[in-house]
Amino acid sequence: MQTFNNKTFTCVGINNTISIIRSKRFQIEKVLIIKNSKAEKDRRLNNTLNLINRGLIQEVNDKKSLSNFKTQGVSITFYGDLIFDETPTFEKNDNICLLVLDRVEDPQNFGQIIRTAECAGINGIIYSKHHSVPLNQTVLQVSQGAFVNMDFYEITNIRNELLNLKKNNFWIIGLENSVEAKPWYSIDYSGNTAIVFGSEGYGIRKKVLETCDFIATIPMQGATNSLNVSAATAAVVFEKLRQKLEDK
Amino acid sequence: MQTFNNKTFTCVGINNTISIIRSKRFQIEKVLIIKNSKAEKDRRLNNTLNLINRGLIQEVNDKKSLSNFKTQGVSITFYGDLIFDETPTFEKNDNICLLVLDRVEDPQNFGQIIRTAECAGINGIIYSKHHSVPLNQTVLQVSQGAFVNMDFYEITNIRNELLNLKKNNFWIIGLENSVEAKPWYSIDYSGNTAIVFGSEGYGIRKKVLETCDFIATIPMQGATNSLNVSAATAAVVFEKLRQKLEDK
Repeated sequence: MQTFNNKTFTCVGINNTISIIRSKRFQIEKVLIIKNSKAEKDRRLNNTLNLINRGLIQEVNDKKSLSNFKTQGVSITFYGDLIFDETPTFEKNDNICLLVLDRVEDPQNFGQIIRTAECAGINGIIYSKHHSVPLNQTVLQVSQGAFVNMDFYEITNIRNELLNLKKNNFWIIGLENSVEAKPWYSIDYSGNTAIVFGSEGYGIRKKVLETCDFIATIPMQGATNSLNVSAATAAVVFEKLRQKLEDK
Repeated sequence: MQTFNNKTFTCVGINNTISIIRSKRFQIEKVLIIKNSKAEKDRRLNNTLNLINRGLIQEVNDKKSLSNFKTQGVSITFYGDLIFDETPTFEKNDNICLLVLDRVEDPQNFGQIIRTAECAGINGIIYSKHHSVPLNQTVLQVSQGAFVNMDFYEITNIRNELLNLKKNNFWIIGLENSVEAKPWYSIDYSGNTAIVFGSEGYGIRKKVLETCDFIATIPMQGATNSLNVSAATAAVVFEKLRQKLEDK
């Protein structure tokens, strides 16, 4: 499986820095700490920093050298096996659940979806390489460290990827308002599943929707028809979790 | 019922402006339109503007006179019965569901919760007057116009308010991780209910939690324990909706 090893990312904040180092998933390039900051005095951060080569840690004076985010006085730059360009071969009975984002454009939404997915036990996120927000610093930051426990698949042709997953014993479920759509809770989310969410403005592309075995919808109860894609994701992944826990 | 009639709010964007005028809930103070903007050419907006006194509409040249948001070339300033300082007396069989936000501090979260709540058919939102983000322009903006269909209750003493609701035949459900907590889907959300969510960092205050008849939790499936409060709200309000729709 090919990965994009050469790409470096930067995150800020005490919790992010601790998560990234402790995950042991990434190579650390550098850690910047602002003198007399909250980060410099944080005992848990200091214990974690003992796990890496001290030469990677630089003390700086200037707050502006970090970023626009609330940094708490620390940033970490790292690289590693975060993004893959194809999915692995899963076993039939793995009960893998992947989310598929077909052109989600808003970094806040992407970041929130990562965080929600991680909390609900989702195994990975497939997203379209084109016409989507990339996995950038804002997205990682919004995910609040949840990305360290998630696999990402950046895919050029989502339709072909879904057809491959179907051959690999996956059921494909699309969340979209359509005449064939069933209420989201009437879908069986057990087994290997891939759940597709479309872009904020345009939904799932027709060619992608055609690959779906089931189409689910969340019927709107109010006057507006504007459920945010990250809220829709939460509704669906926790319905999946409910079915799993109630089934036990 | 006392309301805060004198407070004016400003929102930007074509959809917000249309929703606010068409709701007929508010008094419009002014509408600013930037010359040669998307808004000026929008047919649906122009049709809607015919519903108000033309004297309230001003054409402006300068983009900076609006706000930091993506305005599409229009802003609307209005006032009206948006916020109440006490809840009305509900009937026993109204099947009213209120959300209660105990010190939610992030305007993005508050705005997203309004939008999610409106889509799920929630009847109103109670929020603490102190230590909470107020219902400000950012919150209204993030809600994407959903606020026009929602009642807001800004309450000084949340505990007393919940005790009053209990006398008024409400069941109080708190979302909080505790030893007594049951999985969120095992709670019966029928009848009059108030569902309490705590602050992003600290959860529900002890005195408020004591008023809850049931405590619900969403068990985390991942390595992190950081479900966003707006994602938690989505999980709970759509579980409530599932129970209602499946019950039919």
